[in-house]
Amino acid sequence: MATDLRTSELKEPVDVAEYLFRRLREVGVRSIHGLPGDYNLVALDYISKNGLKWVGNANELNAGYAADGYARVKGISALVTTFGVGELSAVNAIAGAYSEYVPVVHIVGYPSTISQRNGMLLHHTLGNGDFRVFSNISREISCAVAMLNDAHEAATLIDDAIRKCYLLSRPVYISLPTDIVQKKVEGERLKTPIDLNFPPNDAEKEDYVVSVVLKYLQSAKNPVILVDACAIRHRALNEVHKLVEKSGIPTFVAPMGKGAINETLPNYGGVYAGDGSNTGVRERVESADLVLSIGAIKSDFNTAGFTYQVSQLNTIDFHSSYVRVKYSEYPGVRMNGVLRKVTAQMGQLSIQAGPTPNNEIPQEELLSPEPTITQAWFWPRLGQWLQPEDIVITETGTANFGSWETRFPRDVTAISQVLWGSIGYATGSCQGAALAAKDLAAEAGADQVPRRTILFTGDGSFQLTAQEVGTMLRNGLNPIIFVICNEGYTIERYIHGWDADYNDVQPWDYKAVPAALGGRPDQLATYVVKSRQQTEELFMDREFVDPKCKKLRFVEIYMDRDDAPKVLKMTAEAAARTNAKLE
Amino acid sequence: MATDLRTSELKEPVDVAEYLFRRLREVGVRSIHGLPGDYNLVALDYISKNGLKWVGNANELNAGYAADGYARVKGISALVTTFGVGELSAVNAIAGAYSEYVPVVHIVGYPSTISQRNGMLLHHTLGNGDFRVFSNISREISCAVAMLNDAHEAATLIDDAIRKCYLLSRPVYISLPTDIVQKKVEGERLKTPIDLNFPPNDAEKEDYVVSVVLKYLQSAKNPVILVDACAIRHRALNEVHKLVEKSGIPTFVAPMGKGAINETLPNYGGVYAGDGSNTGVRERVESADLVLSIGAIKSDFNTAGFTYQVSQLNTIDFHSSYVRVKYSEYPGVRMNGVLRKVTAQMGQLSIQAGPTPNNEIPQEELLSPEPTITQAWFWPRLGQWLQPEDIVITETGTANFGSWETRFPRDVTAISQVLWGSIGYATGSCQGAALAAKDLAAEAGADQVPRRTILFTGDGSFQLTAQEVGTMLRNGLNPIIFVICNEGYTIERYIHGWDADYNDVQPWDYKAVPAALGGRPDQLATYVVKSRQQTEELFMDREFVDPKCKKLRFVEIYMDRDDAPKVLKMTAEAAARTNAKLE
Repeated sequence: MATDLRTSELKEPVDVAEYLFRRLREVGVRSIHGLPGDYNLVALDYISKNGLKWVGNANELNAGYAADGYARVKGISALVTTFGVGELSAVNAIAGAYSEYVPVVHIVGYPSTISQRNGMLLHHTLGNGDFRVFSNISREISCAVAMLNDAHEAATLIDDAIRKCYLLSRPVYISLPTDIVQKKVEGERLKTPIDLNFPPNDAEKEDYVVSVVLKYLQSAKNPVILVDACAIRHRALNEVHKLVEKSGIPTFVAPMGKGAINETLPNYGGVYAGDGSNTGVRERVESADLVLSIGAIKSDFNTAGFTYQVSQLNTIDFHSSYVRVKYSEYPGVRMNGVLRKVTAQMGQLSIQAGPTPNNEIPQEELLSPEPTITQAWFWPRLGQWLQPEDIVITETGTANFGSWETRFPRDVTAISQVLWGSIGYATGSCQGAALAAKDLAAEAGADQVPRRTILFTGDGSFQLTAQEVGTMLRNGLNPIIFVICNEGYTIERYIHGWDADYNDVQPWDYKAVPAALGGRPDQLATYVVKSRQQTEELFMDREFVDPKCKKLRFVEIYMDRDDAPKVLKMTAEAAARTNAKLE
Repeated sequence: MATDLRTSELKEPVDVAEYLFRRLREVGVRSIHGLPGDYNLVALDYISKNGLKWVGNANELNAGYAADGYARVKGISALVTTFGVGELSAVNAIAGAYSEYVPVVHIVGYPSTISQRNGMLLHHTLGNGDFRVFSNISREISCAVAMLNDAHEAATLIDDAIRKCYLLSRPVYISLPTDIVQKKVEGERLKTPIDLNFPPNDAEKEDYVVSVVLKYLQSAKNPVILVDACAIRHRALNEVHKLVEKSGIPTFVAPMGKGAINETLPNYGGVYAGDGSNTGVRERVESADLVLSIGAIKSDFNTAGFTYQVSQLNTIDFHSSYVRVKYSEYPGVRMNGVLRKVTAQMGQLSIQAGPTPNNEIPQEELLSPEPTITQAWFWPRLGQWLQPEDIVITETGTANFGSWETRFPRDVTAISQVLWGSIGYATGSCQGAALAAKDLAAEAGADQVPRRTILFTGDGSFQLTAQEVGTMLRNGLNPIIFVICNEGYTIERYIHGWDADYNDVQPWDYKAVPAALGGRPDQLATYVVKSRQQTEELFMDREFVDPKCKKLRFVEIYMDRDDAPKVLKMTAEAAARTNAKLE
């Protein structure tokens, strides 16, 4: 083990915790999520001292979800928990960020290195003297683990972890023992920012791949572009936008790619998800002779139960670490550079127009005399009401599947967890997303109004993480929250157990929750809508709609227990079939 | 891999899920904690069919805590979650059960073995085709992992896991893939109950150890007995009670051993925790020439910061897997048999009486004209009010440390998490404990009144898992809940950050929470007490006190932000010193 640097050898000594938090600020973090615990308390003193804000969540799982939401809006986030009890509560959230490529720096306050070496029988341990168990657990769901057991290497490990977090877009784990917090490291390093540029592709290899892509693209008769989650998460949206806009190629998004594309573009065609596609989309995508597939994650819920009908012989896949043309793989070639050159060099292409999605409510819904709010009516109607730059968070379940039918205004950020699918995520994430929007507005100028953050969750899902509404209030956040009241876990009912009591939930008085969590009348407005007419009135309510409204707005919206978006029904049936398959 | 048994070869074919739930019922489980998820739905159908009750918790962490509480009262418990998202949310609770020796059977609904073999890109996965990640995580915190990937071995694996869970008193993990749930196994096995007897000690070895113990015991001039957590968790209380009652030796408990001993016995002497001992106890224990230490866990919070002053030369340690006399170790000798023989053979002993704890309120508190409820006043006063057989749950923080000063009536069960110390635990655990009490009463007879379950938690701690009050209401439970309102994390303040905002919490309207979580007026009574006088009135309120009262009773009890039990202050200072130690 290296010996600690002597402070006298350092040109500009700074404490390890200061170094860490200044680096986080440098890469864009402004608020730190988490909870206090005795092994992290001294480190927490450095947060406000270094120009950061402490969020103070209600529990660690919620804090992890919130950090995930913050990173999706702000580019990266940080979470502080305490050894054992705190960090383990966040494991599900960190695994979700790993699964869905979200960069969260997870800092865990550790017992002192002396206590660790002596195997002391401390609280928050398994009582067996093993202090590596919890980092072993996190190793499975982190792209880097930095154990700061020695000040000599702390700065290097911190820089490396933050860089990997950003570039690989996945969580990293940093242990911070109590006796390391105030050790000195070289502050002069801070004058050189961490290099967050993607290492460029090998030029010759990149040019070769570009020429292959262009050959097929230029000879295609009716190409389409299909954009998915990894285009967002691996920071390729600039390149994608230029390609889409310049080429005019009909462009579609997978469900996890919602929000990646300006949906008001004339060549935006809607959501492609095999059997679960928007009207007219399936035919257009599946009849294309070339699909430029950018950042695909072909998971069951993202493909309406593996119902893609796109031949690999007609596909070029662009990814963060490789490109694949038909069956030819080009490992080590990142999409960004390739897409830039393809856009620059593509010349004139054959384009056949695709469908144009709209937010028209289906004819039968418009003609229906029923006052009930149906899923088929609500989600297109929502698209008419949303505003440019809204942040829209949809919980796994009717909300997320419903949003496939919502055409967004420009520059909407959509947040959901289609792959990981942990219910309760959306409410936590909403806290982080709303705070990120607030932090972004503050950076842009004192009179900048933050983007609206709008959450759609279900009654069952809301129960898992409801406390986070209190954290929103504590941090002066003003999201709009819709709780879809439909008597329990509807997505589960469609998979199995239609009338089973295990798909019911305790009937809460949802609208009473924000006040119980400390919401004062000046911070809070609550609404109950049970009919289309009431929804229309709500959508016209000036205070409710106003981005400048300082209040957290909380809506109970009632829909039928047995109603669900068409694509949810389809995907749930496919999931039930997969679960039941015996050979 | 073994081939599946053909159903025709089975004498009495039963489905794997039926086999599992019947075995759980056999060992004493009556209610199953958990949440539905699509990979466990079909399995959940077997719960009510096999005479068990589904709890339906609000989230998995809470469900895990509740299962822990249930097991501490009922002897063993079961928890059902879904793959990935569900199970990971419960990891902190399972780690706590591992740390504190609590037997919880954790059943995880898995994707079908076919999907696993094919590495399908399913929801709730990390998207990398690796289906072993989550069981690897749980392997770190389970004493057995049973992966039911083959019906042929399922019954054996289930029996083995349940047996280990019970005998080692730690969590086990059982994976149940969707396509295994309805596979057939041999039902005839169910006619032979799982053997839950501890394997007996080697008789010759046991007799040798007994003779060594007796030699020192019979020559001791002023021996004492010190009982700790493992005497409870490793099911040695019968043996301990007989030893204590027959011998008349002054007997003390460690904090984690609270409730192990009938505190009304004339030879019960109070809590020993080094510097944090009850009045007079330290002197008596530390001057003893022999300490019979039964089931010790000498963790920091259990010893007021490692302040025991008991020489190993004066100590005999009794454990579940070994006995140690001074420095002589006898591995493989379980305490139960040894204690039985020691009690039978001990003959006449030299006994010097010890202190007798009472619930007298300190003189200065009695004389104080202040109406404020102080910690020093409250905890002894509580001891005067408790009833025999109460179940008392105290959260880590002021509640747990405070309870060291509460002398219990007979047969009180005390629940806390002194070693693992995860705040939020107590509220979840309260749900499980109250349900276990209800299940025990139902087994005892239709008109049996369940034991009272009484929770003491803090305002900060309550926020982490507050939803579980909704689950209590859903299950018709009637615990008494005290939320100590003292403006945040007092235990953390004593360690570091006296006025730091990170030790504050959002000020909830706590008494409004149960109604917001769906509590109807006929289910619920709420109280606010801010003075000693109001506390006295509450303690006299007939409805509040009555074990037969069907209502959940919820009390906001106000104490000063800066007030804490003396032993908490002492232990927190020791923790701060340990954290800060540099070499």
